[in-house]
Amino acid sequence: MAIVYLNGRFVPEAEALIPANDRGFVFGDGIYEVVRILEGQVFAWDAHAARMTQGLAGIRIDAFGTADVAALHEVCTRLVRENDLATGEATVYLQVSRGAATRTHHFPPAGTPPTVYAAAQRFTPNFPMRDRGAKGITFADIRWARCDLKTVNLLGPVLARQAAKEQDAYEAILHRDGMVTEGAATNAFMVIDGVLRTHPLTHHILPGITRAILMEIVRELGIPCEERPVPLHDLPAVEELFVCGTTTDVQPIVTLDGRPIGQGVPGPITVRIKDAFAQRLYGPR
Amino acid sequence: MAIVYLNGRFVPEAEALIPANDRGFVFGDGIYEVVRILEGQVFAWDAHAARMTQGLAGIRIDAFGTADVAALHEVCTRLVRENDLATGEATVYLQVSRGAATRTHHFPPAGTPPTVYAAAQRFTPNFPMRDRGAKGITFADIRWARCDLKTVNLLGPVLARQAAKEQDAYEAILHRDGMVTEGAATNAFMVIDGVLRTHPLTHHILPGITRAILMEIVRELGIPCEERPVPLHDLPAVEELFVCGTTTDVQPIVTLDGRPIGQGVPGPITVRIKDAFAQRLYGPR
Repeated sequence: MAIVYLNGRFVPEAEALIPANDRGFVFGDGIYEVVRILEGQVFAWDAHAARMTQGLAGIRIDAFGTADVAALHEVCTRLVRENDLATGEATVYLQVSRGAATRTHHFPPAGTPPTVYAAAQRFTPNFPMRDRGAKGITFADIRWARCDLKTVNLLGPVLARQAAKEQDAYEAILHRDGMVTEGAATNAFMVIDGVLRTHPLTHHILPGITRAILMEIVRELGIPCEERPVPLHDLPAVEELFVCGTTTDVQPIVTLDGRPIGQGVPGPITVRIKDAFAQRLYGPR
Repeated sequence: MAIVYLNGRFVPEAEALIPANDRGFVFGDGIYEVVRILEGQVFAWDAHAARMTQGLAGIRIDAFGTADVAALHEVCTRLVRENDLATGEATVYLQVSRGAATRTHHFPPAGTPPTVYAAAQRFTPNFPMRDRGAKGITFADIRWARCDLKTVNLLGPVLARQAAKEQDAYEAILHRDGMVTEGAATNAFMVIDGVLRTHPLTHHILPGITRAILMEIVRELGIPCEERPVPLHDLPAVEELFVCGTTTDVQPIVTLDGRPIGQGVPGPITVRIKDAFAQRLYGPR
């Protein structure tokens, strides 16, 4: 049985139990991260830690600060060891909730300890799907106004991803007020007229760690890129589309709502970026 | 120690533990209700049960249907008995999540049992505050697009209520796109030019049980009432303001962001409605 982390202890998964009145359970009152593990090392830890710290500050879980987040790095590496994941690939899920307390919408009394949970599991990238591309659907972005915070208020993405799955698609491309925002659990990039476009970093998208690395890569590769939203009605003009994320890497989307994107195969800009990101992740192969 | 209900069992509160990978905890993937208990009887049970059934269908927790919701009535009454709450007032909190499963945004495998949790507690209405009125603040409605579903994706209301508390206010009056929607955990009514106004039942407000009863009451009393949103910029013209809900009943709001509403005391229409609702709740006194 997997060993997981809960509130300072490493315990068998079956013993990772939280009180039913935890604010994570009754309010979705928490922040999470998913990190990638390669050969026992956490990929892009500093960026994940910085985002988690910002998210906790954003919803004011003040009892879990920068140093507490930093200490989760050791939790990740120990989970990797305890679960025999030190070679190959894995992910670690990390979550901090505002803790268990008598239910009140307002924050619980000062001193209420946050609940801290982490779990590691084996991860196997779907390389064939990344090479051939995947299906996508469009879906209304019904999420709240602070999508920049990686909270566990995730019903919007849950319903979008379920809709995608039911149409045999990998991802739902969300749109709000007539503009494409991002994927349900990824950031989205599109090529229009040879120029790469992605939504700017506003409250309406998650500041993706992979997205940030891709922005560096496109600069290095000299690929023209604009942080400017793509209107929904311009989707028929999109020549290439891909989504990215910590467990998604760079995933070409080759059909959208059943219609081909470009030629219906991963486009040349997408493939260049995908290959460059794989080098970041795995080194030259 | 309180006795609570979890997945078919009545257990001491300390034993009401759920797996950390419950979708309630990691996605806020669940529906809840709070019901009012008067002398051992659930007030307006049928309305709460109907709304819970609609909410579960709305987020497609298909494994917990109409009959399962109906059976929660007996859970409520037993919790009331077990916790010596059969006289006086109490509340019961009810929550159904999509259950514990390996984390995927899309729904877990068919057959995953939902998690069902219920807890009762003593409730004492704050009659002095209801008589003299309370403070309110305005706050941005940052919630998602399906506020008609009573889900536990509640970070927006949590942050709004915390802001209210920090300003010594009872409630945050939310506004979206320039229109007042409702309170963070209540529905809102306003009097403008002698006419009662409240937001219509759209995806942007919760279909409150108390709200529905008040709509009956205002018809009976012959108070003119329109289901039409109040623009934020009309708030200075509001003569009376009250919020309502299962644990709020009818609560006059007499100052908003520090400025008096009307004369800064509960207005005549508010008081009539408040008294009529108290009769519904308690009978003639």
